[in-house]
Parts: sequence; structure tokens; C-alpha cells
Amino acid sequence: MIVNFSQRAHNHNFESDWAVRSLLDTDFYKLLMLQFIWKHFPDVPVSFGLINRTKSVRLADELDEAELRRQLDHVRELRFRRSELIWLAGNTFYGRRGIFEPEFIEWLADFELPPYRLERRDGQFELRFDGPWTHSTMWEIYGLSIVNELRTRAGLARMTEFELDIFYARAKAKLWDKIERLRGVQGLAVADFGTRRRHSFLWQEFVVQAMEAELDGAFTGTSNAYIAFKHDLEAIGTNAHELPMVLAALATDDRSLADAQYRVLELWQRTYGGALLVMLPDTYGTTQFLERAPQWVTGWTGIRIDSKNPATAGEEYIDWLTSRGVDPRDKRILFSDGLDVGDILDLHARFAGRIKAGYGWGTLLTNDFRGCHPRRTADFEPISLVCKVKEAGGRPAVKLSDNYLKATGPAAEIARYRALFGTAGVANVPVLV
Amino acid sequence: MIVNFSQRAHNHNFESDWAVRSLLDTDFYKLLMLQFIWKHFPDVPVSFGLINRTKSVRLADELDEAELRRQLDHVRELRFRRSELIWLAGNTFYGRRGIFEPEFIEWLADFELPPYRLERRDGQFELRFDGPWTHSTMWEIYGLSIVNELRTRAGLARMTEFELDIFYARAKAKLWDKIERLRGVQGLAVADFGTRRRHSFLWQEFVVQAMEAELDGAFTGTSNAYIAFKHDLEAIGTNAHELPMVLAALATDDRSLADAQYRVLELWQRTYGGALLVMLPDTYGTTQFLERAPQWVTGWTGIRIDSKNPATAGEEYIDWLTSRGVDPRDKRILFSDGLDVGDILDLHARFAGRIKAGYGWGTLLTNDFRGCHPRRTADFEPISLVCKVKEAGGRPAVKLSDNYLKATGPAAEIARYRALFGTAGVANVPVLV
Repeated sequence: MIVNFSQRAHNHNFESDWAVRSLLDTDFYKLLMLQFIWKHFPDVPVSFGLINRTKSVRLADELDEAELRRQLDHVRELRFRRSELIWLAGNTFYGRRGIFEPEFIEWLADFELPPYRLERRDGQFELRFDGPWTHSTMWEIYGLSIVNELRTRAGLARMTEFELDIFYARAKAKLWDKIERLRGVQGLAVADFGTRRRHSFLWQEFVVQAMEAELDGAFTGTSNAYIAFKHDLEAIGTNAHELPMVLAALATDDRSLADAQYRVLELWQRTYGGALLVMLPDTYGTTQFLERAPQWVTGWTGIRIDSKNPATAGEEYIDWLTSRGVDPRDKRILFSDGLDVGDILDLHARFAGRIKAGYGWGTLLTNDFRGCHPRRTADFEPISLVCKVKEAGGRPAVKLSDNYLKATGPAAEIARYRALFGTAGVANVPVLV
Repeated sequence: MIVNFSQRAHNHNFESDWAVRSLLDTDFYKLLMLQFIWKHFPDVPVSFGLINRTKSVRLADELDEAELRRQLDHVRELRFRRSELIWLAGNTFYGRRGIFEPEFIEWLADFELPPYRLERRDGQFELRFDGPWTHSTMWEIYGLSIVNELRTRAGLARMTEFELDIFYARAKAKLWDKIERLRGVQGLAVADFGTRRRHSFLWQEFVVQAMEAELDGAFTGTSNAYIAFKHDLEAIGTNAHELPMVLAALATDDRSLADAQYRVLELWQRTYGGALLVMLPDTYGTTQFLERAPQWVTGWTGIRIDSKNPATAGEEYIDWLTSRGVDPRDKRILFSDGLDVGDILDLHARFAGRIKAGYGWGTLLTNDFRGCHPRRTADFEPISLVCKVKEAGGRPAVKLSDNYLKATGPAAEIARYRALFGTAGVANVPVLV
């Protein structure tokens, strides 16, 4: 066996790969939303805050702050590469070419992340990203994936080479067992939605390649723009809660607050259209959203279910479409909340043939190492790390969601929003990931 | 990532590693038996035959004959290395130094395997090894491990790189689950006995290193002399059926035939002694062996159970010791037939504290890839490949064993032996490995 001296020498000095290797290494919907924000809200200051909802895991005790800063600083030094911008400009997304305008691409070429604020409180890190919405918004995914990967690395550092080998062997075997359960299921449409809570970049890339190799048409793509670019896959995703949250925060009276959730849709369909018209109705409660929705909302391609029991939410959407005179079989429903393979199969059994169902598989695709540690310790239980809009235009931002436990914002503001939107269909469900 | 040009270029031209890399890559007991044969039977011609008992697997259709010959020819070119001979001469085996005489070590330095005869019949390979017993005996393990590893490689060659990755990930996860079940069990003594039916040399080495790393004192060593040498582990094993089989074949009358099984023990204890006095009583049936055994046989350290239901055989040995006035707690019992982790735990639960029980874990330690193939095909089901004495001194050799299905030899000879030894305690049990 010939020694690879350069590799051995490099490994001796090895600190780590960068957790984020490219500005494209984010969810594709952030880029769609970024163009939307750049077009319609170029001057709104918006703050994001990153917190760990799993209080039992004291991240600030586990992770090295200097290393966290080093990784965050590195993303601030990244710029979009020419090849990446050419891909954004020239590639077909959701069947359409030129989805990103030349002026936006030009603007992206100079894009640079704003500074971050990092504090420690009660054994946790609190990260705050301030700046124009056009800039602060992009921190969300980088921040989440960096913290998650550093947590991974802290766990890996406590293992011997041999234990690492077993650890990853188990994870691969586990992943494969999941893929086997999906293989051959007719009409399935599963996408990777796991960037933000991934174990690591390399593991997400491996998982995506495994899905692509094995699930044929049933694997529809990845939410990760960089992985889509690198492996010539479909980039998936449309929009997120931050749009209605910011528009709601900017509302000056109750009327415009109540309308904000539809105003987002109006602006979005003016900006994009076609397959990109997938709405996310749960920001202030799905039930009130659908009940009060103007008839033109039924023209949207589909819906994404994020915080409600997925079977309930799917039935509710089908009932709503039917009551509005629309055939559900022409519409899409995308499930994306804490799915694992069993949930996907259950939902597919329920909804196949009734509606075009798709599955955005996140944490439990790209970060399911439960039971893989050779010593069965809990180091690799996924945690619930989130990055949410805190303020927009100097006013607090609020999300109610379909789950009381997922509401965010100051208590008084939550109360004000609840008074306006009601709590129909809202439940109390433990948050796993 | 810097390209390792030499490795890439080598891999492009890669045929395969040698299945057998050293003459030490054999079961340690072959070396003990070799010295015994060299000492007491230097001139007896003995033929060995290698066959596949799993007829459903047509090896001659699956394996390339030219490659098989290339691998067999390579072992004929091997010689014991100086460092290996020094280890044999200087190392402590079973607590004793100098177990191999200087003259024997000198003789080994010139050791060279005799030619082999390879034929195809009914989709099977038949390998025949003729020559003086001092030479033909050594073919057994090399021949078996080569055929097994070539079968492995034929299966691997049908997989993509990605499938191989999952295949080995599953195998490692499976191995680790087994090791986890053994970890922490008090008083366990498990050894690797898996050379002959291993998946490959590298896999056996990995498995042994995993056991050594994880089972602390419960892993007592390996039967593989080369792996013991390379990793500074205890080499385990004493003797096998070929000794009574050859002595029985050489017997000129019924009286000496009936005595051959004890004559082996007499000669063995004259040659070795102490911890090496582990008898293998099942060549012509355990029950008759124990019943007719002279009282001095109770002085032996222990027994190895190979073809009888292990619980039954263990109880029978304990009863025999008790009936002969010996405390079983001073004696050893080594189980070595087709064990998997569940059997080991069952037997340990039954015998711990009653007798010093040990476990020689073979095929299902070093070649359990059942269910690991990414497509769940049957390529890697273990097969029952054996290499047995066919003739000694021009006369047919016979083994009866405790299982009718494991009897070997011409039918007429088996009948003659059965008339002499009886069939007390012999059963009919399917042979898995």
C-alpha cells in the first residue's frame, strides 16, 4: 500500500471542511423569495433570530464558540461563483427558463451577508441577523446548517476511527432500509427538504445521491440549490412563513393584517406563476386561511402542509377544494413537517389517486442517526433548531401556526393575532424536529 | 481534493488481492497438527478432497476456473517468511513458549505445497490434494478460503460502487449488533474460528479487530495464525478430525480401528500437553467415544463439540465427567459448530458456572452477509464447503460424526465403521454451514 503523503499530512493538520461551501448551499426557495423581496421590499429592515427549541441540549456548552464564529465568518466571505450564477440564469426550474431576472442575477453577483450577533444565554447560543430583508433573510439556512453540523462534529470528535466506521455503517444501513420501503411504490413523489437540519453537507449529498440512484422517478429533487446544481437535479421549493410574517408585521391596521396572508399570494403570483403557486396556509392557522380565502386562491397549483396533522390537513384541503367547486385531482399537496418513511407511506396510502401528493422529507432523511452511535448514547438525537423573523420594519413578527407549541413572537402580539385570526383547527402536538 | 494518481492508476488495472497472502494464513491447529504429523507420520500418503455440499449453488458456473487456478498457484509459490517463523519459534501459545521444535521450524522454512488436481463435475469444482500427509494437509484451509473468497468476489463484481457501499455498511451494522449482544456478558470466552469459510481475508481481519476492540477479555483470540501474528492476538485451536480419520484408515484390524480414536489422544498428549489437551470426540460418534474411553482420558483439559446438538453434547460431557468422578467445573468445553450470537448466549446461559465454556465462532462471524445485498438477492448465502481426508495409505478414510448428514467416506466403509462404533446418540440435523 503506497502512502498518500499529501493526504496524510493534510489530515494531520485537518481542522474541518467548511460547513457551508457555497452561497448556493441554501434552500432553493430562499432564492425565489430573495428575488421576490428584492423586487417588492428592497428597503424593509428585517431581523431573524436563531434559537434551539430543544432546551435539554445545551448547545453553548457543547460547541466551541470560536469555531462557530469561524464558520459564520466564512460564509460572509463567500460570493456566488460565476458558474453558479450562470446556472441560476440558464437552468430550467419548475419547467420554466429565465425564472431569475438578469438584473437580479447581476445584483446577486455582489451579494454579501450582513454581520451577525452571537450571544450565550442559559447554555444556549442566540444568533441574531439584522439588516435589510434582502440580506438578513439569507442567513437562515446557513446559520441553521452550520450550528447543526458543528453539533455533529462535536459528537464525532468523541469517537474513535473504528466507532466512526460503525456509526456511518449503521446510518447507511438505516437509510437504505428506508429507501427500500419506498422503492417500487407507485406514484410516489419524494423530495429532499433536509438542508437546514442536516447531519452535515457531505451526508446530505450522500443521501440525495442514494435517493436519486434508487428511487427513479419517485425522487423528484432536492431543496438544496447547490446540490441540485452540482448533481444536475431538480431544485424544489417555493416560499415560506417569512413572507406573510413580514407583511403582517408591516400592516398598520387590523384589516391589512388580516389581508396580509392573501396579499403575499397576490404579489407572488404576479412575480412567478404556474407550478410555483404553492401556498403555505398555516402561518395564522390553516382553517381560517381557507375559510376566508378569496375564490381566486383556488386557482393556485397546490398547498404545503407544515404544522397541522397531515392527514387532517389533507382532508381539509380536499374538502375545501370540493366546496369551492374544484376537482382535487388537479391540485397538489406537499407534506413537509417532520416526516419519516412510515408517515410518507401512510399518507400515500390515504391520498394517492385523490390528489397529487408529494413529500418534502427533511430532518429524518438527512439527520436520522438515532440508534447509530456504537455506544447508543444520545449525542445524535436531532434537535429542534429554528431561525425565524423577529422584527420587520421595527415591529415584532408573529407566527401562530396550526400547533400552539410552534407559535412565535411576543406574547401580547400573539394574543392580538389570535383575537383576529381565531384558533379554529389549532392543536397541541409535541414538536420532535 | 488532490488526486492520488498512483492509487487511481493502480485501481484501474486492479485484478484482485491474493485470497491467501501468507502460509501463516491458516488455522493455527493445522500447524500444531503439522508438527504432530511431521513427528509421527512423516511418510504416510494422504489425499484430501474439497467439495461443495450446497449443491444448489453451482460453483463451477459462478467462478472463473483460470482465476481459481491463479489463486491456488500463488499459494504454491508462497514460503513462510523469516518473521513468521521467528514468531512461531518465539511466541507463547496457550501459555507455553517453544511449542514448535527448532527442527520443525527449520523444516517449515522449505515448506512448499504439493500440486492440486482440479476437475469440474455437475457444475461443481472438485479439488483433490495428494501427497505426503505432511504436505497435503496444509491445502485444506487455503483451498477452502480461496474458493469462498472467489465466490465473494464473483458476487461483488455484479454490484455498483454504491451498492457495495451499502452492502458493507449493512454487514458492519449487522456485525456490530451481534457484538453489542455479547458485550458485557459475564464470563464469556469467544474466539474467531472463521478462516475457512470467511467472506474474505480483509473482512475476517476487520471482524477480529472489531471483536478485539469491543469485547475486552471476552474475546479470547483467533484461529487464524496470520491474523494472530499480525495483530498480536492469541492463536487458538488444537486438532481436528483428520487425525483419527487417518489413524483409523491405517488400522489393519477392527481392534486397532476401534482404538484409533484413543491412540490419537495418546500420541497428542505425548507431543503436547497442558491446555492443548482438547479432544474432539465426534469422529465416530461422541456417545461411544465417551463410554469406551479409558479413564486417563478424563485427565484431558476439555472437549470440543462439533456435530452434535451443543446443549445435548454439553450435558453428556458433564454427566460423563461426573460419572467418572471428575468435577466438570475444572474442565473446558468448546462449542464450534455453526454458532451464531443467539446460540452463544443460549449456551452460555445454560453452562456458565457449571463448566468452563468457550465458543469458536465460525462462518456466521466471518461470513454472515445474509440480507445485506442492496437488492436482497441470495448471492451471499453461506455455502457448506468442506475439505476432508479421502484416503490415507491407499485406504479410504471415514468420518461418521454425530450427524448422519455429515458422514463422509464410501458407503461400504461407512457401514463397516457403523457396525463397529454403533450409532448411539447420532441424529439427523440439516447442515447449514
